Amino acid sequence: MTVRVGIIGATGYTALETLLILMRHPQAEVTLATSRSEAGQQIGDVHPILAGRMSVAITDYEVAEVARNCDLAMCCLPHGASAETVRQLVQAGVRVIDFSADFRLSTVAEYSRHYGIEHPWPERVGNTVYGLPEWFGDRIATADLVANPGCYPTSAILPLGPLLAEGLIDPTDIIIDSKSGISGAGRTPKLNTLYCEAAESISAYAIGNHRHQPEIVDLLRRFSGITPEVVFTPHLTPMDRGILSTIYVRPSAGAIAKGGLARVAEVWQQHYGGEAFVHAVQHIPATKHVAHTNHVQMTAREAGNRWVLVSAIDNLVKGASGAAVQNMNVMFGLDPQMGLA
Amino acid sequence: MTVRVGIIGATGYTALETLLILMRHPQAEVTLATSRSEAGQQIGDVHPILAGRMSVAITDYEVAEVARNCDLAMCCLPHGASAETVRQLVQAGVRVIDFSADFRLSTVAEYSRHYGIEHPWPERVGNTVYGLPEWFGDRIATADLVANPGCYPTSAILPLGPLLAEGLIDPTDIIIDSKSGISGAGRTPKLNTLYCEAAESISAYAIGNHRHQPEIVDLLRRFSGITPEVVFTPHLTPMDRGILSTIYVRPSAGAIAKGGLARVAEVWQQHYGGEAFVHAVQHIPATKHVAHTNHVQMTAREAGNRWVLVSAIDNLVKGASGAAVQNMNVMFGLDPQMGLA
Amino acid sequence: MTVRVGIIGATGYTALETLLILMRHPQAEVTLATSRSEAGQQIGDVHPILAGRMSVAITDYEVAEVARNCDLAMCCLPHGASAETVRQLVQAGVRVIDFSADFRLSTVAEYSRHYGIEHPWPERVGNTVYGLPEWFGDRIATADLVANPGCYPTSAILPLGPLLAEGLIDPTDIIIDSKSGISGAGRTPKLNTLYCEAAESISAYAIGNHRHQPEIVDLLRRFSGITPEVVFTPHLTPMDRGILSTIYVRPSAGAIAKGGLARVAEVWQQHYGGEAFVHAVQHIPATKHVAHTNHVQMTAREAGNRWVLVSAIDNLVKGASGAAVQNMNVMFGLDPQMGLA
Amino acid sequence: MTVRVGIIGATGYTALETLLILMRHPQAEVTLATSRSEAGQQIGDVHPILAGRMSVAITDYEVAEVARNCDLAMCCLPHGASAETVRQLVQAGVRVIDFSADFRLSTVAEYSRHYGIEHPWPERVGNTVYGLPEWFGDRIATADLVANPGCYPTSAILPLGPLLAEGLIDPTDIIIDSKSGISGAGRTPKLNTLYCEAAESISAYAIGNHRHQPEIVDLLRRFSGITPEVVFTPHLTPMDRGILSTIYVRPSAGAIAKGGLARVAEVWQQHYGGEAFVHAVQHIPATKHVAHTNHVQMTAREAGNRWVLVSAIDNLVKGASGAAVQNMNVMFGLDPQMGLA
Repeated sequence: MTVRVGIIGATGYTALETLLILMRHPQAEVTLATSRSEAGQQIGDVHPILAGRMSVAITDYEVAEVARNCDLAMCCLPHGASAETVRQLVQAGVRVIDFSADFRLSTVAEYSRHYGIEHPWPERVGNTVYGLPEWFGDRIATADLVANPGCYPTSAILPLGPLLAEGLIDPTDIIIDSKSGISGAGRTPKLNTLYCEAAESISAYAIGNHRHQPEIVDLLRRFSGITPEVVFTPHLTPMDRGILSTIYVRPSAGAIAKGGLARVAEVWQQHYGGEAFVHAVQHIPATKHVAHTNHVQMTAREAGNRWVLVSAIDNLVKGASGAAVQNMNVMFGLDPQMGLA
Repeated sequence: MTVRVGIIGATGYTALETLLILMRHPQAEVTLATSRSEAGQQIGDVHPILAGRMSVAITDYEVAEVARNCDLAMCCLPHGASAETVRQLVQAGVRVIDFSADFRLSTVAEYSRHYGIEHPWPERVGNTVYGLPEWFGDRIATADLVANPGCYPTSAILPLGPLLAEGLIDPTDIIIDSKSGISGAGRTPKLNTLYCEAAESISAYAIGNHRHQPEIVDLLRRFSGITPEVVFTPHLTPMDRGILSTIYVRPSAGAIAKGGLARVAEVWQQHYGGEAFVHAVQHIPATKHVAHTNHVQMTAREAGNRWVLVSAIDNLVKGASGAAVQNMNVMFGLDPQMGLA
Repeated sequence: MTVRVGIIGATGYTALETLLILMRHPQAEVTLATSRSEAGQQIGDVHPILAGRMSVAITDYEVAEVARNCDLAMCCLPHGASAETVRQLVQAGVRVIDFSADFRLSTVAEYSRHYGIEHPWPERVGNTVYGLPEWFGDRIATADLVANPGCYPTSAILPLGPLLAEGLIDPTDIIIDSKSGISGAGRTPKLNTLYCEAAESISAYAIGNHRHQPEIVDLLRRFSGITPEVVFTPHLTPMDRGILSTIYVRPSAGAIAKGGLARVAEVWQQHYGGEAFVHAVQHIPATKHVAHTNHVQMTAREAGNRWVLVSAIDNLVKGASGAAVQNMNVMFGLDPQMGLA
Repeated sequence: MTVRVGIIGATGYTALETLLILMRHPQAEVTLATSRSEAGQQIGDVHPILAGRMSVAITDYEVAEVARNCDLAMCCLPHGASAETVRQLVQAGVRVIDFSADFRLSTVAEYSRHYGIEHPWPERVGNTVYGLPEWFGDRIATADLVANPGCYPTSAILPLGPLLAEGLIDPTDIIIDSKSGISGAGRTPKLNTLYCEAAESISAYAIGNHRHQPEIVDLLRRFSGITPEVVFTPHLTPMDRGILSTIYVRPSAGAIAKGGLARVAEVWQQHYGGEAFVHAVQHIPATKHVAHTNHVQMTAREAGNRWVLVSAIDNLVKGASGAAVQNMNVMFGLDPQMGLA
């Protein structure tokens, strides 16, 4: 079997990363790629790394064309625009993985508060599976629509979720200090992502009001049943790709009684021991240790009366395109590692 | 008047930065530069950026030579080695600014615990002024020996000190997440500071046990009278220079009553309003905003029930060589901004 | 005496670099800064590195205001737009240093061919001095208008000019392979100067048709009397600033007879021995060796039957803003090194 | 069939890249990895990107162990040391791909002149196939020993070879200006490859005497029958990986008569039209366009009376490890693209 994949919105960095992964995938084929602005061009004209290697003409998006040519649409559009397209595709019978934030949160109210628009397809908010196969694999397998996770949330909730669920940490005192590569800001030219602004400089942004904060809280609640209080600060870091999250938590009294950090190791092993892409490691992970891979590395250390968790992912792979292909594999009954190992 | 300056240990990055600043200084002259490994070479051979611009022959260190030629020695040696040299110089009547950590802490016991060696000159531990002119200018003015501050501590204590002293924050709950450029790790070739290891990667290190943690606590105590509990995590960031510290604190009940963040602005203004190099800014500072300058930029934001302070310095300038020249200016009665503005 | 300087077009990288240099200059003061898009803001809002350090309100450009407040205008506008503004300013009696290419070439025809527009002030083409003080200092001293040199040309013509003038090299066989930092492409957001496009990548561009090629040929001709044939290839290099030019020439028969490379050293010494900013060095220069300075480093090596010349400058300093301040110093009878040493 | 591969000298960057490629290869398995300095460690300790993903214990090199466990040895040792190990392995019946320069040149005399040592196994100099499958695939298929190409030579000879062979360019006038990422200098800590030395800086080195110059000449001669004169200048470029070669040639009179650049396109198509990894492209290639791939992109442009050829490869992939796996595929009768597409 070959999964016929359409890329909706094929010009950005996550679209490119998805194309590169799918080229190595033995049971997937890119049958269609759309872009309003670049329709008529070859994919290799827009992404010169594909020149001579992939022969796909970019077309304008038309739902009927996608329905005819694709088993799956990977929708790489911005929020808002995405939800409307996703609705058309799902209603036309195409299974969809949506890269945007449109179907990640649990309620329409939460969505409107943080994204500032009315939701275009409210019926599917709160009942769409969040595409983290390590947590929600069963529901992903049968889903018509999967909300691909945000990059920061992936790096934060994977280490935190099990510790929260098992009562190892104080839910009211969680600080997430995340450092992301510049590709997370997208491929549209803006002043702050110019080389001369971003290189040799690190800066915090959106302190106290980044849209991934409610996503982190919502998902931790869905996984653990507990609604935590989270302070989240993202940083723009002078590198192309990667997210490092340094997470400060307070161990619960019970956690210390039951072994402290050793208990963290146990709980992670128990939750992720069978997972191919999540690794509790001895060393302190760097983003280079996961660059261009779908892997997560995480570790825990003691510092004063706190635990410091450090996790590293590639924001474009496990934080976006790799996760999407992993979801595709689960949706179509393939080996979850296919194309990603 | 011209201050005759000797650079002891002239091959590293802080030595070079000091030389570059002193070249622009209208009332200082580099009369001597020493290095065991490079003696006999011209300074421009070791630092090609000085080729054709500065004519100083590197010599082996001899205390008598320094005493004859210098009013001030800038000692850029590693800890341990530095204290012994500093002792000789001070006892020979040369005023000294010591870049190492040897005279920064208050007690010999604390020094030994964190640096793992017996202190070579214990008599001067606890009674040497810490070279932060914004706090200790009076004592620096008359000092024979100044302990130049650590780079991370400078970025952390400047914003924190006044808030702690004025009772605005909870002293038991301070988290400092610092991101430093690679030059902080020195010029000796090591695996983790190679371009191919450090570029396009960010990583935490020394979690819970970095030597600047006790320095931060000690100085905050000296300034405020309160001994805070501090969790400090340094990160190696893919940039040459700069430190960004993202600091998570809990406002005290009193602080909120008295105006919250507005009170922070007031307190900073009160402490630093007259300082040329410390700026409370509206924007969120990036390390690029202070690169190649002796300035500090800092701001405060609210996030949930915490305040997030962000400060930026150039680790080689305000974090080392610029601070040293600022100290020199104060020690010799010059305008504190001379050579630095 | 203090030179009152106006910066026309104050938002770009060369404007910022000029402001940073002028802040250190003991006999210059920035009295005015204009920008159509940012009028009304403080200079520190547009360039956060100036926050708290410089107090200049950005205004809309008005010729009368400039005339009233400035002895000198540094015009940092794009070509075409610049010439018209320059005309107004010069006619209003303000001396001008023009950063654009509008007054660099010798003929209107050449200008139109390469810049694709009719020249807005043809009367001043061919009789405006080219602002390279090492070659044209006398004329700069009395000029009402100075054409500030292009960055690539500066790096290429300084080493080549004397060799050509003295007959050491074959004028029909000159290849210039130049590598520039990204800041040369300006501060307007464009796809190819985004961090994620430019970092970790090097590329050639404008092969055989870059606008600095005729400028190089024209200036070499003006200096040496010989019109050379030049192949020039610029490259976008993953760094903020700096230009390295690797130049391939054939020694003339006479040059080899008279001593080969030793003769190159003699000729450079003879032409530049008295110059503060031009250094023939023993080592092979890197752009880091001149970063943030107004210096040029250059060397020559033998390779087969060719000579390879290597020169390094900082494109924003000696390639733009430093050169402008050097020109200002010459124009106003100040020490040429003032503010730049 | 599964090829059992041993990595001899497993700690460097090319060894790591080879391991990463082989992990994706469906018909190869790494059965052994050796390192004198790291024996006893797990491969994931030395290369943290492999932590949790590959389970191979590093051992000390012993020829009998390699012979027992491997069909093929990838020898990643430095020159000189490599030849001796290669001899042992080949004589023990293990097929070998040698990453060093020891078997690339045609004569022992040439080797000694450029590498400064006597050759440890002179019998195999001049009769070992050069591992460029695009040129020497037939001989590679049956070889017991393959000399894996140098990175710079690969980038230069692929575009040049056919043009030289077909008489399109003047063999006496070839200039190769190459820009390499820092990983080409290896993983042993050295001053010039430190982040703070290499970042934000570009420099030429080994002008007129780099060891890849004779390799380029020798291979062009072997391919075309003509011994060209080549000036070759390598540059250290602030990026992890990639080589861009900008090549200046003079078209022959015949070439111009027969169509100029159009003829170049024809000749490249004729030689490489059937090759999976060599692409003549319309755009000017950047190293980012081939990063992390085994592909070569090349193009040609006119500039004055010269042609400028530009080629881009990833120095660690097509310039080393990818080429080695491509050679392995050919040696073992597998699809040449296996593991690389």
